[in-house]
Amino acid sequence: MAARKQLVLGAVFYGVGGPGQHHTWLSPEIPGDASVDIRWYIARAQQAEAAKFDHIFIVDSQFITPDSPNHYLNRLEPLTLLSAVAVHTTNIGLVGTLTTSYNDPFNLARRLASLDLISGGRAGWNVVATGDGGTAGNYGRKEHYDYAARYGRALESVKVVQGLWDSYEDDAFPRDKERGVFFDKSKQHPLHHVGEHFQVVGPLNIERSPQGQPVIFQAGDSDEGRDLGASIAEAIFTHAATVEQAVAFRTDLRARAAAKGRDPDHVLIVPGFNPIIADTDEEARAIEAERVGGKDFDRALKELGRPFGWHDFTQYDLDAPFPELGDAGARSFKTQAEGIKKLAREHNLTLRQVVQRSIDSQRSPFVGSPLTVANEIQRWFEAGAFDGLNIGVAVPSEFARFTDQVLPILRERGIARTEYASTTLRGNYGLPVPANVNAR
Amino acid sequence: MAARKQLVLGAVFYGVGGPGQHHTWLSPEIPGDASVDIRWYIARAQQAEAAKFDHIFIVDSQFITPDSPNHYLNRLEPLTLLSAVAVHTTNIGLVGTLTTSYNDPFNLARRLASLDLISGGRAGWNVVATGDGGTAGNYGRKEHYDYAARYGRALESVKVVQGLWDSYEDDAFPRDKERGVFFDKSKQHPLHHVGEHFQVVGPLNIERSPQGQPVIFQAGDSDEGRDLGASIAEAIFTHAATVEQAVAFRTDLRARAAAKGRDPDHVLIVPGFNPIIADTDEEARAIEAERVGGKDFDRALKELGRPFGWHDFTQYDLDAPFPELGDAGARSFKTQAEGIKKLAREHNLTLRQVVQRSIDSQRSPFVGSPLTVANEIQRWFEAGAFDGLNIGVAVPSEFARFTDQVLPILRERGIARTEYASTTLRGNYGLPVPANVNAR
Ligand SMILES: Cc1cc2nc3c(=O)[nH]c(=O)nc-3n(C[C@H](O)[C@H](O)[C@H](O)COP(=O)(O)O)c2cc1C
Ligand SMILES: Cc1cc2nc3c(=O)[nH]c(=O)nc-3n(C[C@H](O)[C@H](O)[C@H](O)COP(=O)(O)O)c2cc1C
Repeated sequence: MAARKQLVLGAVFYGVGGPGQHHTWLSPEIPGDASVDIRWYIARAQQAEAAKFDHIFIVDSQFITPDSPNHYLNRLEPLTLLSAVAVHTTNIGLVGTLTTSYNDPFNLARRLASLDLISGGRAGWNVVATGDGGTAGNYGRKEHYDYAARYGRALESVKVVQGLWDSYEDDAFPRDKERGVFFDKSKQHPLHHVGEHFQVVGPLNIERSPQGQPVIFQAGDSDEGRDLGASIAEAIFTHAATVEQAVAFRTDLRARAAAKGRDPDHVLIVPGFNPIIADTDEEARAIEAERVGGKDFDRALKELGRPFGWHDFTQYDLDAPFPELGDAGARSFKTQAEGIKKLAREHNLTLRQVVQRSIDSQRSPFVGSPLTVANEIQRWFEAGAFDGLNIGVAVPSEFARFTDQVLPILRERGIARTEYASTTLRGNYGLPVPANVNAR
Repeated sequence: MAARKQLVLGAVFYGVGGPGQHHTWLSPEIPGDASVDIRWYIARAQQAEAAKFDHIFIVDSQFITPDSPNHYLNRLEPLTLLSAVAVHTTNIGLVGTLTTSYNDPFNLARRLASLDLISGGRAGWNVVATGDGGTAGNYGRKEHYDYAARYGRALESVKVVQGLWDSYEDDAFPRDKERGVFFDKSKQHPLHHVGEHFQVVGPLNIERSPQGQPVIFQAGDSDEGRDLGASIAEAIFTHAATVEQAVAFRTDLRARAAAKGRDPDHVLIVPGFNPIIADTDEEARAIEAERVGGKDFDRALKELGRPFGWHDFTQYDLDAPFPELGDAGARSFKTQAEGIKKLAREHNLTLRQVVQRSIDSQRSPFVGSPLTVANEIQRWFEAGAFDGLNIGVAVPSEFARFTDQVLPILRERGIARTEYASTTLRGNYGLPVPANVNAR
């Protein structure tokens, strides 16, 4: 069951090669320094906007090691980046990742509200709590917050930030030059928040934008992560390997949202995919085989360490059983780490087999001719697997395969838009403008 | 004695009316919502760039009350703002104010480095420690840091941020697609900083820009503030009412810098002015009389409270002696507060007289015909009063009086530039690119 008639479409930036896109930086279409070249981001965003995409999405992290994937190593900070993109685009939504573990809510509120005004109501905030445990060391902490503190802070942060965003009623600034009245101070409202993690007096020093408040996004797999998403998110980013898994995730999230008294149709589920599209199914599969086969095994071995707090797997015999790791990962990507350990245990896998499975799991479910891919997307959408999808935008010609060959089919079938409905992100999603809690 | 041949020229944004510019929001030339309209900032920056100004400068604060001046009440966050301006300008420097009291150094380093790359080497950081004591309440603190902690954090922050900016040697990213080498990990350097206020492991996830590092600015009056400026600043923003006062300030700062082993010529002193320029001296003085006379006494009474932690002066008899205030202001703008108390004591002033003096002290020293103003600026420059000046840019026609009528005279005399020397801020200032401490 699809909750909406038309797909939400997002273009995701992993820098120069990310999950499932490690090959991208080698593409002759991409400048070597793309991940720090604002002109590249602007051009890619304009390409997505020309195809009437709802949003672009910038991932982020605050911790790297010499072995981090290329796209983490050298990249622009999301809001600085999006602000520059904002003034070279007009309709597309601008979704930036900012962590609640290592930012003060007052600063988060200001920066997102600024982007929202600069873009005329197109800002979105991907709320993350940070998975990489090593991030703590960049912020004066010995250890990363545990799951309870991490998600407790995330929930409270969002509430504080949203409270600050309502500091002014919509008519707080008459700016009446004739009467000399700039401001109506009775319409300014401090927050006086006192909570478990934060105390913030307020008010903010910035008014609301045309969409009322930036749209809240979330991405997290654990039970705590899903609960947070169900509580606060208006859109949820995720991964999905099969239609069954995607339907189960979406059903679960909608049920959790409903249980919290929210309208599940106001929680859009948007997994990310890297479709492989060619003239024929055979050609597409050949490209896929080359990519999956060509993927550097050593790099995959290193990246396997990430959910375990960048545990070093090169120290083990590849053909011995998957090693005992104790509680490595408890403060990093717990769900992912536990999932890998369980898989290895249940199937008695060697380390080499686990790495191979992780390589295989990054295969895209959408591989084939434009018609095949369009059919599959439609099937997933109608099965209730998602409200829309994020597509990697890195390689212009690959992205153009989607926009120029797949999208027209989806448009003809009425499940992709032909024109923007609005100049705001909420407007294009069909989400309501949140009422100002201070409005009388 | 002028240390340099040509003036540094900056355009300062106080939003819609700031110190000495309270009338600006009423100008028919300024949209009522200018302070949150990015198109307005872009247009003003382009106007300054057309006149070959070195930089624009964005002030900031994180604390307001219902009685805050208009331009504080509703404005964009500086780096989000400057990033949008960066992609609509090509040569002008972009200086943003960010406080070290309420930002993590890792976040400061990233955002400033991003702006520096986005702008191709035009970023500057005005390092402030925050004067408004009430800011603490927006960041979960009962009280603002005292002077020692405030300036201790500022100094250590700058050192940490600069250390992070050197995380990569200039050739750390070969991006050699043929050999498949994106990154040379031997050229990435963590920081491992352990100090009194901060512990930061690093490395940063962003490379250096064409100017090496963003330029460091500072503005602070107290002894602690001057010492900080002498230690870290490459340019210092200040106010100046008389040429003697300005010469004394610059002489003091240069001596302090030299005592710290720095080259005083690499510490540019740049006070801010709002010149009043008209066709004749008489006309200019008439405009000034109207503005100073027209300045709202009540507003000045309220603003007098700011250095004393927004102390409420409306409770006192205006014609009684200036009240006893104890240590009000000790955690806000101490130097300014102490200066006012001393003045009142020494001259036996009433509260009304103190307010009147504060109104008078905001008079601009540069009032007259273009020739008069050009002569005065030259006299100050040659007396060693400044290395350049910041001019309020709010009202386009007033700013144009300076750029179109005064600047040509200064150019003819060889003390203002006719063309940009560089595309970087350092290049235009004539400041050296700092060596990377990790380069071998
Ligand atoms: C599609 C997707 C995108 C994500 N993007 C980011 C990101 O940009 N930055 C980040 O720190 N974490 C990101 N995450 C990680 C999540 O926020 C979360 O930490 C991770 O999924 C582990 O989930 P858990 O914390 O609930 O165990 C992303 C996750 C998904 C599924
Ligand atoms: C020209 C100028 C510009 C300033 N801009 C800011 C600003 O944007 N934000 C801020 O918090 N403080 C700003 N300040 C205040 C100083 O950082 C400092 O707090 C103040 O001058 C008091 O000095 P003291 O802290 O050394 O006593 C500015 C000061 C001057 C002189």
